[in-house]
Amino acid sequence: MFKFKLHKKDSTTKARLGEFTTPHGVVQTPIFMPVGTNATVKAMMVEGLTGLGAEIILSNTYHLYLRPGSDIVRKAGGLHKFMNWDKPILTDSGGFQVFSLGQLRKISEAGVKFRSHIDGAPIFLTPEKAIEIQQDLGADIIVCFDECTPYPSTFEYTKNSMELTHRWAKRCKDAKTRDDQALFGIVQGGMYKDLREESAKEIVSIGFDGYAIGGLSVGETKDLMYEMTEVTAGFLPEDKPRYLMGVGTPLDLVECISRGIDMFDCVMPTRNARNGTLFTSKGKVAIKNAKYAEDFSSLDDECICVTCKNYTKAYLRHIWMAKEILSYNLNTIHNLTYYLNLIKRVRSSIEDGSMNKLREELKAIYS
Amino acid sequence: MFKFKLHKKDSTTKARLGEFTTPHGVVQTPIFMPVGTNATVKAMMVEGLTGLGAEIILSNTYHLYLRPGSDIVRKAGGLHKFMNWDKPILTDSGGFQVFSLGQLRKISEAGVKFRSHIDGAPIFLTPEKAIEIQQDLGADIIVCFDECTPYPSTFEYTKNSMELTHRWAKRCKDAKTRDDQALFGIVQGGMYKDLREESAKEIVSIGFDGYAIGGLSVGETKDLMYEMTEVTAGFLPEDKPRYLMGVGTPLDLVECISRGIDMFDCVMPTRNARNGTLFTSKGKVAIKNAKYAEDFSSLDDECICVTCKNYTKAYLRHIWMAKEILSYNLNTIHNLTYYLNLIKRVRSSIEDGSMNKLREELKAIYS
Repeated sequence: MFKFKLHKKDSTTKARLGEFTTPHGVVQTPIFMPVGTNATVKAMMVEGLTGLGAEIILSNTYHLYLRPGSDIVRKAGGLHKFMNWDKPILTDSGGFQVFSLGQLRKISEAGVKFRSHIDGAPIFLTPEKAIEIQQDLGADIIVCFDECTPYPSTFEYTKNSMELTHRWAKRCKDAKTRDDQALFGIVQGGMYKDLREESAKEIVSIGFDGYAIGGLSVGETKDLMYEMTEVTAGFLPEDKPRYLMGVGTPLDLVECISRGIDMFDCVMPTRNARNGTLFTSKGKVAIKNAKYAEDFSSLDDECICVTCKNYTKAYLRHIWMAKEILSYNLNTIHNLTYYLNLIKRVRSSIEDGSMNKLREELKAIYS
Repeated sequence: MFKFKLHKKDSTTKARLGEFTTPHGVVQTPIFMPVGTNATVKAMMVEGLTGLGAEIILSNTYHLYLRPGSDIVRKAGGLHKFMNWDKPILTDSGGFQVFSLGQLRKISEAGVKFRSHIDGAPIFLTPEKAIEIQQDLGADIIVCFDECTPYPSTFEYTKNSMELTHRWAKRCKDAKTRDDQALFGIVQGGMYKDLREESAKEIVSIGFDGYAIGGLSVGETKDLMYEMTEVTAGFLPEDKPRYLMGVGTPLDLVECISRGIDMFDCVMPTRNARNGTLFTSKGKVAIKNAKYAEDFSSLDDECICVTCKNYTKAYLRHIWMAKEILSYNLNTIHNLTYYLNLIKRVRSSIEDGSMNKLREELKAIYS
């Protein structure tokens, strides 16, 4: 039911071209997954998302468990049916959200006790529970429950945390009963290369359908993030997809693909859209800037999205200043088009051997 | 360039079937105009609005004058181009907003001094200025600047206010220079039948391309509103469209069409959508209600909109509770579909003589 096929390895970088087959269709890798936290990619109609060429989305276990409740999603026939999206979905394990949103958390061998960020209700999440919830949600790809190690952390804390993640990974694998869901393991190890190696080897030895790299993009420098990504990817098997969680900027995508990553998710295109920051072929645009008040040119003349085709910067600025809902809609359409189109360009560049050229182009625009 | 053709008069009510030709196309009457205050119908893509069958929209002179400024809209090539809507548009005169939103207003023969609700800047709006702004905006139908008489008002205040509106109407007609815009006069007269008669006759004697009825739905009872509408419509010429400003509920539309009204605008479908109140063939639905948490049926099985076709009440409730932007989008699509479809049904019922039956149906649902 799940198959990862490696089509090509780039000759000058560690970039890979592949495809991952899931029960809801085939995903071309490298891939970017728009984030649909609450069973909706914020400010996007599902009908529009398909039009932009999104192949797979991510949804958040933690959020859906709290609201509407995974039992309701299960009774609705699963997440695909609930949200009317019939392409692949990946759910994260809730680990990251427990650590970034959960209040008063207490970690033990059994799991994590914390309080809901919505109503303060006490919650106890364990590896078994995280799998149960994800089985209720019914995504194509589910992920092990882990501790996302804070940054910075001492070697000792990071090692203990990583070892807990390893024990939890085994429990997750044991708890899983559905065979129509792929399970990804998560490599931790903080900013310590030897721990990253140890974690990768241990998680691989347990054996999963794919491998996620967690605990990065948590405050460290870009160089450190790229280094940890490259080190970790080096210990992951070639014949499984590699997913770098929660990353990143357009340049991050290109840099990390060139270090061997196949899958990404990030709130950046959607969140920035709602903050009025737009990604274009010429760099970032803050649409509220007064200089766009009478700028009747399109946002990005290299972009073919509805926003760029049908509206001017002056209009986009106007609806942003007026806080119109359409502003969120049009900005999100554009930013997701930018990300999804960038990923397509990366795939073409791996195909024709011009990956490094594209990387230089992105560096020039974004650094 | 403008032509109102009366196709049919209902035999049992005063309802009329007609069509109004404008530079951006023909509008079938009776018609409902979705409100696009800030050059966007809130929470709707223009691309989606066309799909719902909207034939004409209203936009607000006052709001666009303050932001982005009518000069910017003019430089953009006019409102149609600015907002990417190539069907007819009606702009109101700003009169209602000056009285409902403007702060510290001072009315004189010359015009109204007030302060912007956005930044408190002083503004002086006159009949000539209201026409100038509307000519900059470039809608197909523009409207005279009037005083929207407060409710309740004494006979004397109402009469003086009405007479000012009449003098302003003449000045508006004199100020208008573009011949590709129809100008509608506004009848005032508060809740006094003899003033309504006097106002209608005076405004008609000045002579306009269509006639708006203002100063209703401002706090009076439904019965009084219906009565004033009927009285006023009775003094308007048969060969021009009649527009009841800012009305109303689904039942109001049917009741007022049966009293001779051809055109309506109201924020109700769009605003209620954003408040989570949805109009259905079974009546109003408050989507936040806990009873919908596990209701996996569609919102309205008689509705063919995307919201009803693709989503369950449980999902609509979930995204409402999570305050997701998609909730505003899907709710608005549904409510506008309901209104636009109701208007189509009214037109059919006038065509086949079943208007009173439809009226009874709406009464049963909504009163």
